[in-house]
Amino acid sequence: MTASIVDTLRVLRINGDASHYIEDSIVKESPLTIIFNGEELVTLLCSPQHLDYLAIGYLVSEGLLKQKGDIKRLLTDDRRGVVRVDTAGGSQGETAKLTFKRLITSGCGWGSSVYSMGEVPISRITSSVSIAPSQVLTLMKNFQQRCTTFKITGGVHAAALCDKNEILAFHEDIGRHNAIDKVLGQCFLEDITTAEPLLLTSGRVSSEVVLKTTRRGISILISKSAPTDLAVKLAQDLGITLVGFVRGQRMNVYANEWRVNTNERPGD
Amino acid sequence: MTASIVDTLRVLRINGDASHYIEDSIVKESPLTIIFNGEELVTLLCSPQHLDYLAIGYLVSEGLLKQKGDIKRLLTDDRRGVVRVDTAGGSQGETAKLTFKRLITSGCGWGSSVYSMGEVPISRITSSVSIAPSQVLTLMKNFQQRCTTFKITGGVHAAALCDKNEILAFHEDIGRHNAIDKVLGQCFLEDITTAEPLLLTSGRVSSEVVLKTTRRGISILISKSAPTDLAVKLAQDLGITLVGFVRGQRMNVYANEWRVNTNERPGD
Repeated sequence: MTASIVDTLRVLRINGDASHYIEDSIVKESPLTIIFNGEELVTLLCSPQHLDYLAIGYLVSEGLLKQKGDIKRLLTDDRRGVVRVDTAGGSQGETAKLTFKRLITSGCGWGSSVYSMGEVPISRITSSVSIAPSQVLTLMKNFQQRCTTFKITGGVHAAALCDKNEILAFHEDIGRHNAIDKVLGQCFLEDITTAEPLLLTSGRVSSEVVLKTTRRGISILISKSAPTDLAVKLAQDLGITLVGFVRGQRMNVYANEWRVNTNERPGD
Repeated sequence: MTASIVDTLRVLRINGDASHYIEDSIVKESPLTIIFNGEELVTLLCSPQHLDYLAIGYLVSEGLLKQKGDIKRLLTDDRRGVVRVDTAGGSQGETAKLTFKRLITSGCGWGSSVYSMGEVPISRITSSVSIAPSQVLTLMKNFQQRCTTFKITGGVHAAALCDKNEILAFHEDIGRHNAIDKVLGQCFLEDITTAEPLLLTSGRVSSEVVLKTTRRGISILISKSAPTDLAVKLAQDLGITLVGFVRGQRMNVYANEWRVNTNERPGD
């Protein structure tokens, strides 16, 4: 599907005391309904492009899809905004028990609440990959150069899967979670992989973003924006290196900073 | 509840070739589970403050709560992040049929898909309120001055209910929907009302934000950021005046611009 995610629109532009109509760019928004093993799982509001990647990425992120070989059927209806995914062994009625459940325990906050996503436990990341700060800055610069829809409209987030040197998959979407899921879905469907995967995002890093990253075995998460305290605690616990506020020559490392080699130079 | 929504954290700050540990501010993130008439409705990830406002605002925005008098019981457990809301006449088993349903029809996009929220139809806004551009700019300036958590952390969105001259309710939250729902929930619970209500938001305006605004009978929606095309179409159809990209002396009016009086001067 090659539909654009941007449209144009007649807008009244007011500037001080002057006002006139202009043609302006605007991001499109469209619903995507994911039907999983015959049951309506969720409707997401998204940029109407690469609906198959988004559906698969969502299922992968939620722990509902583990291996590409499990996909028995993948039908995308771009016009109606529907993707149907059937899995080997999947049957109606199983979806409900697999969906995200928060177990309320006696404590408060992280450490006493238990997150479980489906039946798949989340394993701690132990990868020994490392990266130099200059590589982080170069990746973020290349990433921002590709954020063309953001430059035109200001209305989207972006995400990318990279290795230390280049971007391997890149998507923009009106939702920051959707952009990440499109990247993860494309990599899953098209076997885009690397021994040292990094995830880049333009958006704020909440706990859900760290969980998505961990589930795909990605050890380094890099954001242009701020993380939350729960995202930092999860990243610490799950072995994720979390880098935020990558702007100009600066960045903050919030968790597992041993992977950011402040002595290493690119090419080492 | 007066808990702070900001914490401090030890962070490795890298700046060019230099690196050192600093104490930095970070926004808190915490789950809120809403139990509605005895059933677990949803778990939101939010800033841990004013959970009662958020729960009530969420129910109001989803069309599950219509009048303050319908609330039979409101119990907030800040420590566990749980709010229980029971309504007059509400009983177990009713929640499922009330939740958001997207009906898939034969077309694509807005106009052929039908959104229904619960059993409450959304009425077109016909209010004849108007506002001068200079008033929009002054409100946005005051609004941004109150965004103190954003200034410290860069990690939250803000929303406010205003009349033409001042801010009546203001909240910041890690979620842009949550910030709006906290504002709407406070106004609902504390009878904060005005004949000419405006909603201000720091965040992007998607279709859901327009639906929330319409449901509360608010005729003017003002954002610092970009709207989507679906938000604009909904605003046009539902009679909402949608103003975006309010920055410096400039703004764009995307729908029902007749309410923005480009000839009017403040005080008229």
